[in-house]
Amino acid sequence: MHENEQSQPLIHDLNDPRFRQLRSLQSSQGRSRSGLYLIEGIRHVARAVEERAPLQSIFVAPNALSNPFGQKLARRLRQAGTPCLRLGPTLYRDLTLAAEPQGLGAVIRQKWTQLHSVRPHPSCLWLGVESIDSPGNLGTIMRTAEATGVSGTMFLGDGADPHEPVAIRASMGSLFSQKLVRCSASEFTQWARASGVSVVGSSPNGLLDYRKFHCRRPAVLLIGSEKRGLSDQLAEACDFTIRIPMLGRGDSINAAVAAGVLLYELFDQRRAASASLEHESGL
Amino acid sequence: MHENEQSQPLIHDLNDPRFRQLRSLQSSQGRSRSGLYLIEGIRHVARAVEERAPLQSIFVAPNALSNPFGQKLARRLRQAGTPCLRLGPTLYRDLTLAAEPQGLGAVIRQKWTQLHSVRPHPSCLWLGVESIDSPGNLGTIMRTAEATGVSGTMFLGDGADPHEPVAIRASMGSLFSQKLVRCSASEFTQWARASGVSVVGSSPNGLLDYRKFHCRRPAVLLIGSEKRGLSDQLAEACDFTIRIPMLGRGDSINAAVAAGVLLYELFDQRRAASASLEHESGL
Repeated sequence: MHENEQSQPLIHDLNDPRFRQLRSLQSSQGRSRSGLYLIEGIRHVARAVEERAPLQSIFVAPNALSNPFGQKLARRLRQAGTPCLRLGPTLYRDLTLAAEPQGLGAVIRQKWTQLHSVRPHPSCLWLGVESIDSPGNLGTIMRTAEATGVSGTMFLGDGADPHEPVAIRASMGSLFSQKLVRCSASEFTQWARASGVSVVGSSPNGLLDYRKFHCRRPAVLLIGSEKRGLSDQLAEACDFTIRIPMLGRGDSINAAVAAGVLLYELFDQRRAASASLEHESGL
Repeated sequence: MHENEQSQPLIHDLNDPRFRQLRSLQSSQGRSRSGLYLIEGIRHVARAVEERAPLQSIFVAPNALSNPFGQKLARRLRQAGTPCLRLGPTLYRDLTLAAEPQGLGAVIRQKWTQLHSVRPHPSCLWLGVESIDSPGNLGTIMRTAEATGVSGTMFLGDGADPHEPVAIRASMGSLFSQKLVRCSASEFTQWARASGVSVVGSSPNGLLDYRKFHCRRPAVLLIGSEKRGLSDQLAEACDFTIRIPMLGRGDSINAAVAAGVLLYELFDQRRAASASLEHESGL
C-alpha cells in the first residue's frame, strides 16, 4: 500500500456518519432512499467491476484483506479514483454475512430498467417474481436465470428486493448482468398485453404439466410467493399455468428448485428451437 | 391439559441432564453416539408420526405451544405413552432454529438401511451424495428426491449428515419417508458393480449434456460437493458423467437447483417410459 493510504486513519466509531451511511444500506428503507446497495467479498467486487456495475465507493478492513488478488483489486480501484473507507474489524464485521470476512466491499448504484422501455425480442424469456419470501431463494433464482439466458427479471409489487444482502450473496454476482424492472401487477398486465408476450404462471394447481407445455415466445415466467403462490390479479393475467408433478407426501418442493426446473425446461425448448433452425438452414 | 401433566415442573436449568441430552443431539458427535436426532416444529412432528418414524420422546415449551393442532398432537402422543419433557422458554429456544418456536419437538431414533440389503428394482433411481457442504442444500435435495420418487439416498463417506438440524428443516419431512444408507466410496463401488446399477455422476465437466442422456436403470445419480465436485474415486466409478449447460459469466448454479434439474429430468424419463409401456400394453 502507498504511504498516504496507510496514513488514512481507520474508522472505529459506530457513530461515524460514513459508517452509519454504509450500515443504512442493509435496510430496505436505506437502500430505497439512497438508490444504492452494498456488496461484500472479493469475488463479488471483482464480478461487479467486470460487469461494469456503477461502483460509488469501496470499503476495506485492512487487517482482514490478506488475499493478494483482493489487495490488488482494491489498489487498482483506489488508483482509478474510487473513494475508499478504511474500517476497523468490528465495524467491517457488521457489514458482512460471511463467517470469515474477506475485507473488501463496495457500494453500488442501483440500476433499474423502465418497464415501458422493454421491447421483448421474439425468442426471449423474462422472469417475473412477485413476493418471494426468502431472499436466499430469490438470489438463487436469479443465479439460475442468468445460467439459462433469461433476459431480465421483473419485480412485481414490493415483495422482493434483489439488493437485499442475503439475496445478493445467493445470486453470486448474477445481479450485475441482468436487467431489473420494478412495476406494479397492473402495469405489468398492461405491458404484457400491449407487447404480445405469453404470460406463463407457475402454480401447484397449474393446468398443464410443465413437460407437456410448449412455450410460445416472447414469454414471461411468473413465480409467486413460497407460501401463497401468485396473487389473484397475476394468476388471472396468465395465458397458461403450469405445474410440476410431485410424488410422495410432501406437498411442495423448494421455490428456488421449482424455478430452476422450469427455467431449465424453457431453456431447453429454446435450445432445441435454435438447433432445429440451424438444421433447417443447413448450418 | 390434564392436571398431572401440568404439575410436572418445567425444566429451567441449563445443566439439567435431561436438557443436556437433548442439546447434545445438535452436534454430529452427540447424534452418532446416541443414534438419535432431534426435530422441532408441529409440522415436522406431525409428519414424523404420519410416517411412523420411531419417536423416543417429545419435548414441549408449554408457553409457546399455542396452536390447537399442536396441543392435540402432544396430548395424543403423551396418552400413547411417549415420554414428554416440559422445558422453560429459554431452554426450548436453544433447541430450535425457528424465529417463532412452535413449542413442540421430538427425539427420534435414526433408521439406516444396510447397503448389502439394497436390491435395486429394475426401474428405480437412487441418489448418492458425497460431501454436500451446506446442510440446507442437502435437505432441499432430499425434499426434491422424495418429490421425484427416488428410492432412497446413499451417503458416501462422512461428508453429509441428513440428521443435521438445518438439513432436517430444509428437507420438510422427506427424511422420514426415505431409505438412508451410509457407506464408504469403495463399498459403494463394489455394490454398484455387483448389482448392475448404472452409476451416473453430475459434474460441470460431464461428457454428456443431461438432456441428451438416456438413463438406463436401475441407476444411482451421484452428487458431489458444491466446491470440489465428486472425489476422484467416485468420479472413476461413474459409467456416465452428465453436465448441465450454463450461459452467462457465472460458472455454476446452486447445488440444490442442479440436483433438482437432474432429478426432474430422470423422473420425466421414468414417467415417459411407464406411459409408453401402458400405451404398448393397451392400458
